[in-house]
Amino acid sequence: MDYPSDEHLTETLIHSETLLDGGFLKARRDKVRLPDGRSADREYIVHPGAVVIIPLLDDDHVVLERQFRYPVNRVMLEFPAGKLDAGEDPLLCARRELQEETGYVARQWAYAGAMHLAIAYSTEIIHIFFARRLTAGAAQLDKDEFLEVQKKAIADLAEDCRQGFVTDAKTLACMLWLQNVRSGNWKLNWEDMAG
Amino acid sequence: MDYPSDEHLTETLIHSETLLDGGFLKARRDKVRLPDGRSADREYIVHPGAVVIIPLLDDDHVVLERQFRYPVNRVMLEFPAGKLDAGEDPLLCARRELQEETGYVARQWAYAGAMHLAIAYSTEIIHIFFARRLTAGAAQLDKDEFLEVQKKAIADLAEDCRQGFVTDAKTLACMLWLQNVRSGNWKLNWEDMAG
Repeated sequence: MDYPSDEHLTETLIHSETLLDGGFLKARRDKVRLPDGRSADREYIVHPGAVVIIPLLDDDHVVLERQFRYPVNRVMLEFPAGKLDAGEDPLLCARRELQEETGYVARQWAYAGAMHLAIAYSTEIIHIFFARRLTAGAAQLDKDEFLEVQKKAIADLAEDCRQGFVTDAKTLACMLWLQNVRSGNWKLNWEDMAG
Repeated sequence: MDYPSDEHLTETLIHSETLLDGGFLKARRDKVRLPDGRSADREYIVHPGAVVIIPLLDDDHVVLERQFRYPVNRVMLEFPAGKLDAGEDPLLCARRELQEETGYVARQWAYAGAMHLAIAYSTEIIHIFFARRLTAGAAQLDKDEFLEVQKKAIADLAEDCRQGFVTDAKTLACMLWLQNVRSGNWKLNWEDMAG
């Protein structure tokens, strides 16, 4: 949220260089001008953006995934998510990822909002979608993807968040949306999708 | 959340190497054994862990920071947070960061839980604390830290989340905690701190 007077906080680019071009991770190192005129280095991951989907079943349940996440060395319970392909529309990506990872196709979609995942060191933005009127089908996982689809009561998922069984930040942020939508405090604009 | 039968999801280390040792970002590339016996590479940021603090004022307000976050190129409204020093106790880190960044000292603290911030590519865990019975004082910012401290009504902060003015994932996850604590659904164990 930028205010008119944010010059006293803002950093501006002086010079940018590639820091890392791994098979998966891309990073840059920028020299920036600090608000007081001095300079500093900023190193960060360059990410194409992503989507996360809150798939609502008709009976107070949601669709989740259980997936081993190597960096944190554990199986995580999380909402379905995936990276944008270059130039991909976020809604198309959300529909693709939901079907590929869980097999579900949704007849109605709503855009909720966005989150920035790791603002200290990544450009990643995640677009949050709700999906409902689901039809089950066959997942189409990549050959190096291993995950389980799980239906869960929303009340049980909230309890898992409280007890520390759900610790994925994007999933916790989605729970904020889910609780406020269910309470009626936050409204969604649902859109019908053709088959 | 690991189940007895998670071998069909779990990846195991074969070989690890340093991928990046920047001044700020550290990354590794591990060769891992997939559940089906094949191998794959996993690249990820190595992070020391962090804390985030939800500082409660006595009048339905919280203490936030406005800070320019270079990777996302904007000023972000977020709860105070900071990285653990090597071997640092999370509660001590939380007390230190709150005082350094905002000037506030809290007489009561409660540990809420943890989140994993970017499970696809970072080891980062963030420990979530609540703080209350705050006394204002002078911040002690590092010379390259530029931020504003802001008091905000919790209801207004929730509205900012809904409208997309707050997009920081850790702050959204903290709002889930804050709403459930305020509603009485989630309980905290408060501890008194000496001076």
